[in-house]
Amino acid sequence: MEQFSNGDIFVGEIIGTAILVLFGVGVVAAVNLPHSKAKGAGWVAVSFGWGFGVLAGAYTAAPLSGGHINPAVTFGIAVESGEWSKVPVYLCGQFIGAFLGAVLTWAAYYSQFAANADREHAQPTLVNFSTIPAVRNPAANLITEIIATIALVLPLLAFGLDTGLGESGTQILMVALLVTGIGLSLGGPTGYAINPARDLGPRIAHAILPIPNKGTSDWGYSWIPVAGPVIGGIIGAGVYNAAF
Amino acid sequence: MEQFSNGDIFVGEIIGTAILVLFGVGVVAAVNLPHSKAKGAGWVAVSFGWGFGVLAGAYTAAPLSGGHINPAVTFGIAVESGEWSKVPVYLCGQFIGAFLGAVLTWAAYYSQFAANADREHAQPTLVNFSTIPAVRNPAANLITEIIATIALVLPLLAFGLDTGLGESGTQILMVALLVTGIGLSLGGPTGYAINPARDLGPRIAHAILPIPNKGTSDWGYSWIPVAGPVIGGIIGAGVYNAAF
Amino acid sequence: MEQFSNGDIFVGEIIGTAILVLFGVGVVAAVNLPHSKAKGAGWVAVSFGWGFGVLAGAYTAAPLSGGHINPAVTFGIAVESGEWSKVPVYLCGQFIGAFLGAVLTWAAYYSQFAANADREHAQPTLVNFSTIPAVRNPAANLITEIIATIALVLPLLAFGLDTGLGESGTQILMVALLVTGIGLSLGGPTGYAINPARDLGPRIAHAILPIPNKGTSDWGYSWIPVAGPVIGGIIGAGVYNAAF
Amino acid sequence: MEQFSNGDIFVGEIIGTAILVLFGVGVVAAVNLPHSKAKGAGWVAVSFGWGFGVLAGAYTAAPLSGGHINPAVTFGIAVESGEWSKVPVYLCGQFIGAFLGAVLTWAAYYSQFAANADREHAQPTLVNFSTIPAVRNPAANLITEIIATIALVLPLLAFGLDTGLGESGTQILMVALLVTGIGLSLGGPTGYAINPARDLGPRIAHAILPIPNKGTSDWGYSWIPVAGPVIGGIIGAGVYNAAF
Repeated sequence: MEQFSNGDIFVGEIIGTAILVLFGVGVVAAVNLPHSKAKGAGWVAVSFGWGFGVLAGAYTAAPLSGGHINPAVTFGIAVESGEWSKVPVYLCGQFIGAFLGAVLTWAAYYSQFAANADREHAQPTLVNFSTIPAVRNPAANLITEIIATIALVLPLLAFGLDTGLGESGTQILMVALLVTGIGLSLGGPTGYAINPARDLGPRIAHAILPIPNKGTSDWGYSWIPVAGPVIGGIIGAGVYNAAF
Repeated sequence: MEQFSNGDIFVGEIIGTAILVLFGVGVVAAVNLPHSKAKGAGWVAVSFGWGFGVLAGAYTAAPLSGGHINPAVTFGIAVESGEWSKVPVYLCGQFIGAFLGAVLTWAAYYSQFAANADREHAQPTLVNFSTIPAVRNPAANLITEIIATIALVLPLLAFGLDTGLGESGTQILMVALLVTGIGLSLGGPTGYAINPARDLGPRIAHAILPIPNKGTSDWGYSWIPVAGPVIGGIIGAGVYNAAF
Repeated sequence: MEQFSNGDIFVGEIIGTAILVLFGVGVVAAVNLPHSKAKGAGWVAVSFGWGFGVLAGAYTAAPLSGGHINPAVTFGIAVESGEWSKVPVYLCGQFIGAFLGAVLTWAAYYSQFAANADREHAQPTLVNFSTIPAVRNPAANLITEIIATIALVLPLLAFGLDTGLGESGTQILMVALLVTGIGLSLGGPTGYAINPARDLGPRIAHAILPIPNKGTSDWGYSWIPVAGPVIGGIIGAGVYNAAF
Repeated sequence: MEQFSNGDIFVGEIIGTAILVLFGVGVVAAVNLPHSKAKGAGWVAVSFGWGFGVLAGAYTAAPLSGGHINPAVTFGIAVESGEWSKVPVYLCGQFIGAFLGAVLTWAAYYSQFAANADREHAQPTLVNFSTIPAVRNPAANLITEIIATIALVLPLLAFGLDTGLGESGTQILMVALLVTGIGLSLGGPTGYAINPARDLGPRIAHAILPIPNKGTSDWGYSWIPVAGPVIGGIIGAGVYNAAF
């Protein structure tokens, strides 16, 4: 992280995380909201949409910040490398970017949110912003997020993302497909935050944006998709340091 | 753009854009038209079909023209690089190629168009050529196309497409999967033109071709998938120039 | 083609084409036959199955023969390079390999073929071996196969497959995803042979194998998926030579 | 295999195989268990989930052990190279890792297993751990596993996995997509173990873990997904040695 300036990190993480969330939150809106052409495309679409959001966001941010776009990754790399001085700049950029990405998605799907609000029984809209567990159980949900984030950070460190991009960007593609795999395989119980910014930023956007009939922002659950990925990122990096 | 001759650009963009549209318009026909073996394969098929069309078309055109095959990309690269002299040649090739690609798709799906026309209630055929918004709202549709095209051009410039192909073509693969991601995540509201040639060329083909019971070519909407991507391409390149 | 020995070409094309057909014919059996765990997985599965079959088969054959595994590719490369002397060896290997691949698939799905035969109304089994058009119309079917094969051979020559493998094998991956795209986008009307060996070899296997209640081998259609891809391969190479 | 120390091999194969099984067993739980958000995502999800599990596991293990994470691969490479001294270390790591991966998956899907047990007619849970044939026929099931494992090991040796990773890791991606293809194309009859550790490790976990209403661990079938892949790996390597 030391090779990037604070200004570049801040800008890069804002842009990269905004793109990630635009794609990721976008695909959930695409398959869920009424009057969307992708309605019903299902979990395969969701998993690949998030994965290709990683591809787009991380690749864009890479020259400026290395393309973390996820506080769990930043914590993991900090644990692995012992460099902590720039962590706050990364986090600020990531949460701001995630918020902005959710606002952009809402703008892109404005008519679909309006169509949902006009229905006799509007569906709650939080799922189009943040994660909601399939079965609400704080301990189990936390464990799922921890395991899924270990499954992200451990291979990611082995992919060498901390050492910068390969010339052909293949490493970013690997991470994108890794995230697709986490969605397919480990997303079932909680909807896989595995990224505190990805969950909290859009949740704040959901609370603020003037969406009619939007339903609860579910703040009682909000700490789990923050704490779980941070814990998982740190454990993953610890295992990496012990094994490699 | 300066390194390619006008003749090569013109030929390359015609061939590349024709291949892009053949795949992209083809996959929509494949999942929509009656008596197609891919009928009902849905939005995942559509998104990957367009993405692999980018792979095929851009890769084929790359040695001749750099493989823009999209006026929004050409405008974005012109804004980023300040080189505008060859833009008209690119645009001519792209619109001609898109028209030809749509004609080829119609030829490939001739029996399916005929089967549709023979049904008691033939479905309108425009969707197999050009985009139709899920909810018709010019301002919202325009904003969606602008956002989706920014999400294309900003990462694409970061992928370095403007500086030529990598030896292994990995960059083209990145762009192909990026376009797949845009389809999955941002295609719900308008069907994602994100490419003026991709929409206008096939719309002209739809108006001209002798398809029985073809329905309207919907010229009233036709300016949005042209203007939106052009605006988005310019904004995306402006953000790129400001940030990088 | 000149750099490979006749013996290596023959062995390589047998093995590579057998693997291609094992995957490709296998995925059709997987989604169609009763008592298959992949039953109903649909056209997305079929397209990716064939594409990854290209990946597996072409990669395996590449060191021995360059990995054509398709007479249309061999004809295309012969037209492009002007080297015809080894074409017969390629073709022999390809047809033998395709036949063997179909036999292996039948062995792998033995119980599923048996379960189908035991049903009161056994479905015809040819679709699990060779292509069947959705609408039978020789001229239209031939045109579809020609267009789809041009869409294979033209990008493939641009990918540089004729000049040998890249070190990382990325070119093979490109071709695999290209074939996936052809399946998604252009497979609807005829089931996309785009490869004479892929269709004729398994059709001969279907005629010979002792499959109960197997139904017709449909020899009346068999010339189209041979002639169409050969014509398309030659046209594609001609366009390539004219443009590049 | 000679270039890695016994300690590194043991640790690497444990971690890599645990990640593989976490993803692979996870995706089956994701699409099968009640109250999973991916419920019903189907065979395309399953095949890509296993494939990306290979990507994650093999990539993580590669610097320590070369990333076999599959006894059939280890046997294949041993036959091909004639180096057998480290095979036992690989196998120990692989089976321990597969067991641990299944335990992690059970922890991640704890609430979903509980929800299944609470239903009036709990579904048997073994499918979320190990393979179950669609039609039970030992000879046919064994042949299917042998063919599918040949289809893994033969291309894998041609990909050069035995000679270490390429710098960009492209070879791992090839293997991941190869495994996805095997799932799509050859997984229909038996659910494609193609890896003795992947099947036996989770089966032991299933027998030991305190899952309510878990149903049988089906030990009568357990030898087939062990013997079939070992035989297939050896045959595949033998064909490779004969042909290349």
